[in-house]
Amino acid sequence: MPTGRAKPTAVEAMALAVEASARVHGTTSPNPPVGAVVLSADGEVVGTGATRPPGQAHAEVVALAEAGERARGGTAVVTLEPCAHHGRTPPCTEALLAAGVARVVYAHADPNPKAAGGAAVLRAAGVATGHLPTPVEPLRAWLHFARTGRPHVTWKYAATLDGRTAARDGTSRWISSAESRAEVHRMRTTIDAIVVGTGTVRADDPRLTARGTGVTRQPLRVVVGTSELPPGARVLDDEAETLHLRTHDPDAVLAELARRGVVDVLLEGGPTLAGAFARAGRIDRVLAYIAPKLLGDGPTALRGAGVSTITDAVGLVVEQVTMCGPDVRVSAVAAR
Amino acid sequence: MPTGRAKPTAVEAMALAVEASARVHGTTSPNPPVGAVVLSADGEVVGTGATRPPGQAHAEVVALAEAGERARGGTAVVTLEPCAHHGRTPPCTEALLAAGVARVVYAHADPNPKAAGGAAVLRAAGVATGHLPTPVEPLRAWLHFARTGRPHVTWKYAATLDGRTAARDGTSRWISSAESRAEVHRMRTTIDAIVVGTGTVRADDPRLTARGTGVTRQPLRVVVGTSELPPGARVLDDEAETLHLRTHDPDAVLAELARRGVVDVLLEGGPTLAGAFARAGRIDRVLAYIAPKLLGDGPTALRGAGVSTITDAVGLVVEQVTMCGPDVRVSAVAAR
Ligand SMILES: NC(=O)c1ccc[n+]([C@@H]2O[C@H](COP(=O)([O-])OP(=O)(O)OC[C@H]3O[C@@H](n4cnc5c(N)ncnc54)[C@H](OP(=O)(O)O)[C@@H]3O)[C@@H](O)[C@H]2O)c1
Ligand SMILES: NC(=O)c1ccc[n+]([C@@H]2O[C@H](COP(=O)([O-])OP(=O)(O)OC[C@H]3O[C@@H](n4cnc5c(N)ncnc54)[C@H](OP(=O)(O)O)[C@@H]3O)[C@@H](O)[C@H]2O)c1
Repeated sequence: MPTGRAKPTAVEAMALAVEASARVHGTTSPNPPVGAVVLSADGEVVGTGATRPPGQAHAEVVALAEAGERARGGTAVVTLEPCAHHGRTPPCTEALLAAGVARVVYAHADPNPKAAGGAAVLRAAGVATGHLPTPVEPLRAWLHFARTGRPHVTWKYAATLDGRTAARDGTSRWISSAESRAEVHRMRTTIDAIVVGTGTVRADDPRLTARGTGVTRQPLRVVVGTSELPPGARVLDDEAETLHLRTHDPDAVLAELARRGVVDVLLEGGPTLAGAFARAGRIDRVLAYIAPKLLGDGPTALRGAGVSTITDAVGLVVEQVTMCGPDVRVSAVAAR
Repeated sequence: MPTGRAKPTAVEAMALAVEASARVHGTTSPNPPVGAVVLSADGEVVGTGATRPPGQAHAEVVALAEAGERARGGTAVVTLEPCAHHGRTPPCTEALLAAGVARVVYAHADPNPKAAGGAAVLRAAGVATGHLPTPVEPLRAWLHFARTGRPHVTWKYAATLDGRTAARDGTSRWISSAESRAEVHRMRTTIDAIVVGTGTVRADDPRLTARGTGVTRQPLRVVVGTSELPPGARVLDDEAETLHLRTHDPDAVLAELARRGVVDVLLEGGPTLAGAFARAGRIDRVLAYIAPKLLGDGPTALRGAGVSTITDAVGLVVEQVTMCGPDVRVSAVAAR
């Protein structure tokens, strides 16, 4: 919807704000990827913005700058409650008040005690506020991080319909389809860190980089395990930064990653490390690419999750099932 | 759509015919469950019918009987090309000609050389014929049987997202949800035989009957394996007929079942027998109920499928993915 023309409803404006935030997803950690749309007093879109990299402008400020004087008496529609605190940038509430907006609508309250209270500050200054609850995928990891202090962990794996990740002779290239692999590469551009165990580095010597057209940044590569990495391993190349964490404790991994500003983790296996994360209750989401093949033999995706009887199974809730080329992609979140 | 009122399009009339056939699915083997709708000369629905049990009237005859004189100059819409041969009942082409229909539209040509040629017979007698290709789920197994001479095999299993069918201690009740189990019971009323190995009978002592409201018939229960069944095993009760086939050869099983008029087989496991069917290339469709749980340990759904390297994996094509309560249900057919 081109700026200055359409008069969207609040729901439509929020969808534009979510879209704007999706474009910066993966470039803002430890800050949230927020999207903002500014509507003029008569309801036209006069500004759109999204969080700039850390230390730079927040979404509201970007959108207000585009809107200029046309923001006065208008509405700011934002995916996250505007912050009210002085961090590396001044509070967004101040920018909104200075611009003279009459109303602020947000999709998620800020769970961060330091930043929260933005809506109350605005109301105290005479600005109307509205909460429009909306699922905002780009905020998922950050909201989890803000609530728990731990990076959000998505365990991703590819397996056959009968649950095998490789054949009996160890061959697995490629279990999943070109479409699924391309999607994983796109996802790697939106996350902060990829985590594997030393076993996967030894077995597959993966590059763990995002590849494909338009890839401009690389996630941090993290290898977990006490053994040394083989000299010449591809994860030691210059394509991205690599961290080797000599521990078996998922919480130690997550604490170190949080310290480095990592909010969104993609756990890419193998079965031993995934099992350790499952046992520790540190898998927040499972993303399974299920290839329409049967093997009847070979390794499975998860090992040693600490479950011995069916009633202790790790419970999930399916949130989305889609096709990815010929594969079935299941996204499921921890049932808590 | 009530008879004698609406004027459906050919596509709508075919949908009504498919619906009629679905109501008799499971009661017609070795005959196909066919549905038929008769439209009057001015396009009103004047008759609906479906195949009666073996030896009784075919779908066209039932629908024509309801239509009576109103069939004259009208259209018969049938899911399968009308038969032109004398079996236990006279050919349907004769009934259609006697009723004076002007046009016959069918969804599937009859692959059975003995019965085929119905459309040609009708055309030779001056009746217009039309082929309206439409997927007809109730005909799936019968079409396969007519083409190959073998009953159609659906391998059904329930597993966790990580591919386990039980926990380490062997507990598995209930891996899948109440909704999935209810659906399996409904499906058991539409198939001709349920097949398991002696291992499943020993381990689970299942009843292998269709249970639930409105269940009026039971599939044949088939146990495959050379060992004796434990005395008192539930499959030996009086709720349904049980066949014990002392063989390890899937083709011997299918030949014996075909001899008994079985067209549609539900293979319910376990992993050894499913592996034998996979190895023999005798799994035509896989129906996986995937529960949103992780176990990380325990048995898998398939064993010994004879695949040792990834390029030899049994290839499938996903044809439908649906939710069944909290579970993901994947239906995939053999890629041939
Ligand atoms: N299909 C897929 O999606 C997928 C994805 C990734 C990998 N894989 C496959 O997985 C296989 C490798 O399996 P893997 O299990 O060896 O890989 P892994 O889980 O990546 O690495 C295992 C190693 O992780 C370390 N580790 C970290 N925390 C641990 C803990 N709490 N307990 C035990 N060990 C811990 C240990 O290393 P130290 O001994 O150094 O301490 C252990 O040897 C490969 O064949 C690969 O192809 C498949
Ligand atoms: N999750 C699910 O959907 C599901 C469904 C069914 C079963 N299960 C589980 O499966 C487990 C039983 O596993 P299972 O593998 O023993 O069961 P199975 O496959 O039902 O039975 C195995 C037996 O089948 C016979 N058999 C037939 N053809 C064979 C061949 N070509 N090669 C080898 N054996 C052949 C053998 O019996 P003889 O030795 O008598 O010759 C063999 O011992 C149970 O724990 C049960 O709970 C799970």
